[in-house]
Amino acid sequence: MKIGILGATGAVGRQMLECIEERQLPVEELRVFASERSKGKKLPFAGQELTLEVVSQERLNGLDYVLGAVSNSLSKEYRPLVEKSGAVYIDNSSAFRQEDGVPLVVPEINGQDALDHHGVIANPNCSTAITLMALAPIAKLSPIKAINACTYQAVSGAGMGGISELKDEVTALTKGESVEAKVFPAQIAFNVIADIGSPLENGYTTEEMKMQNEGRKILHLPDLLVTCTCVRVPVYRSHSIAVTVVTEEPVSVEAAENAIAAFDGDLLVTDHTPTPLENSDKDIVQVGRLRRDLTNPNGLTLWCTGDQIRKGAATNAVQIMEYLENNK
Amino acid sequence: MKIGILGATGAVGRQMLECIEERQLPVEELRVFASERSKGKKLPFAGQELTLEVVSQERLNGLDYVLGAVSNSLSKEYRPLVEKSGAVYIDNSSAFRQEDGVPLVVPEINGQDALDHHGVIANPNCSTAITLMALAPIAKLSPIKAINACTYQAVSGAGMGGISELKDEVTALTKGESVEAKVFPAQIAFNVIADIGSPLENGYTTEEMKMQNEGRKILHLPDLLVTCTCVRVPVYRSHSIAVTVVTEEPVSVEAAENAIAAFDGDLLVTDHTPTPLENSDKDIVQVGRLRRDLTNPNGLTLWCTGDQIRKGAATNAVQIMEYLENNK
Repeated sequence: MKIGILGATGAVGRQMLECIEERQLPVEELRVFASERSKGKKLPFAGQELTLEVVSQERLNGLDYVLGAVSNSLSKEYRPLVEKSGAVYIDNSSAFRQEDGVPLVVPEINGQDALDHHGVIANPNCSTAITLMALAPIAKLSPIKAINACTYQAVSGAGMGGISELKDEVTALTKGESVEAKVFPAQIAFNVIADIGSPLENGYTTEEMKMQNEGRKILHLPDLLVTCTCVRVPVYRSHSIAVTVVTEEPVSVEAAENAIAAFDGDLLVTDHTPTPLENSDKDIVQVGRLRRDLTNPNGLTLWCTGDQIRKGAATNAVQIMEYLENNK
Repeated sequence: MKIGILGATGAVGRQMLECIEERQLPVEELRVFASERSKGKKLPFAGQELTLEVVSQERLNGLDYVLGAVSNSLSKEYRPLVEKSGAVYIDNSSAFRQEDGVPLVVPEINGQDALDHHGVIANPNCSTAITLMALAPIAKLSPIKAINACTYQAVSGAGMGGISELKDEVTALTKGESVEAKVFPAQIAFNVIADIGSPLENGYTTEEMKMQNEGRKILHLPDLLVTCTCVRVPVYRSHSIAVTVVTEEPVSVEAAENAIAAFDGDLLVTDHTPTPLENSDKDIVQVGRLRRDLTNPNGLTLWCTGDQIRKGAATNAVQIMEYLENNK
């Protein structure tokens, strides 16, 4: 496999490299791309060193897969170059997720969709991927009608800048110094902020609407209704989501637990309450506290955690690439 | 007014003293009680010093009001003494909240109930008080059928020990030292824990069921249904709650905002997203992000914050005392 990574120095890009190494993919060539600023610097990979390059048509040519871990605007800029190269573009940005003909894929849920690509496959939003992993086994028992989700999202969802902002704020506050928020709309240390993404006319944010829009496409449920509140919390890695799900027919707690336990994928139903800290740097999505929704006989309520840099981004993208490779 | 405070050295007890001073109540006498360990120590009040005493029948006699900020078991132990003294017992523990004949009161919502007391009045759970403040104006427009609440609860909800556990953990982690959780079931620094209270048969915790049980009593809605997930977050003060509320008849976002703005109490509907940090050490409950519930035409979704040591505990107890005093 000849693989390229766009944005290889970011939190997701670095994790993609680590996932490729861990999963021992048969890599023939790996090219890592970043901004002009990082050109020539090295990144470790499988005991070797990779040299960072700037994206060019020439250096994309010959690749089988390009994994994108860059902003929406850069992803739009690079897409024609990747398409011209003939490589399959697996993109972690939200730029093409709703585009017709671009599959939006969580391999364990709708891997088959990836095979219908036309050169571009989109990786879903982090909270959406983690939540849908928890809900997909339930959806198989009875179609999902509605979801009410409240997120507890780690700072690394905002990239390396989010991680350092929390760290710097804690350091400053410990010294009695004042804090000025840059990456987040307010101080995130010892605070929570219910404001992720951009505001929309309906009072929700772009981040919150992804759960409905992407959920519909991934689960093949065009009428799925989702009410979501996305909240940033001072956790470094791993998102948590408190979810209430309403199905067409009632699903018992036991049936749901059995379906999650039997699901083919890195998904675990636990007796204890999973925390984002214990789930950090792991591919697994953990589901705990599964219980009846007391407001609706067709509802279930649960708590799930997943590392959003891994299953919510890098691991999922690498899994899509593996799926294509295994189904050639 | 002759007032006694049980548990005056705790987070809530100290705040009760501060509230009494701030609100300039006509205090004729103030007696502060704590454990044997604190006997003889001093607490500042209105430029003077109060000497901590151990609870006794003799020292309770002659008081008009006793504010309780002690554990359930201590509250049960002291109740007969307070009753014998003839003082009204306003108790912040959960020991008597569901007892017939004991009013459970948020003065702005059901202050009238306090007048029917038989010596004991209960102060509600912190998250419940804050959530119901946000919802009471909506309930006046149309009765509430169901609530789905996810909490983001500050460590001070677990008292002084919770505050120092977060502080100590951050210090230890900064030095690269390991951390051992004592007050909380896991490390709370840079983590969130969906496990507050004791587990019940139905999969919920005692803390989570308070929202339904206390909500029914305070709002006079015996059939109210509540699904709640209570989560501890590494915030020092102020709880936040993401709430979806379903009413019998649809209520518009505008009507709800107007009702909250017009509500007679420390309640504010804001254009920005309130954070617990900005709400810390304030009596006000702030409501933001009011929008339609996308899963139910009769639903509204909102975000609210309130200082749980103040409105969620001490301020509310002092307000109950004021209400009784003003309605003698």
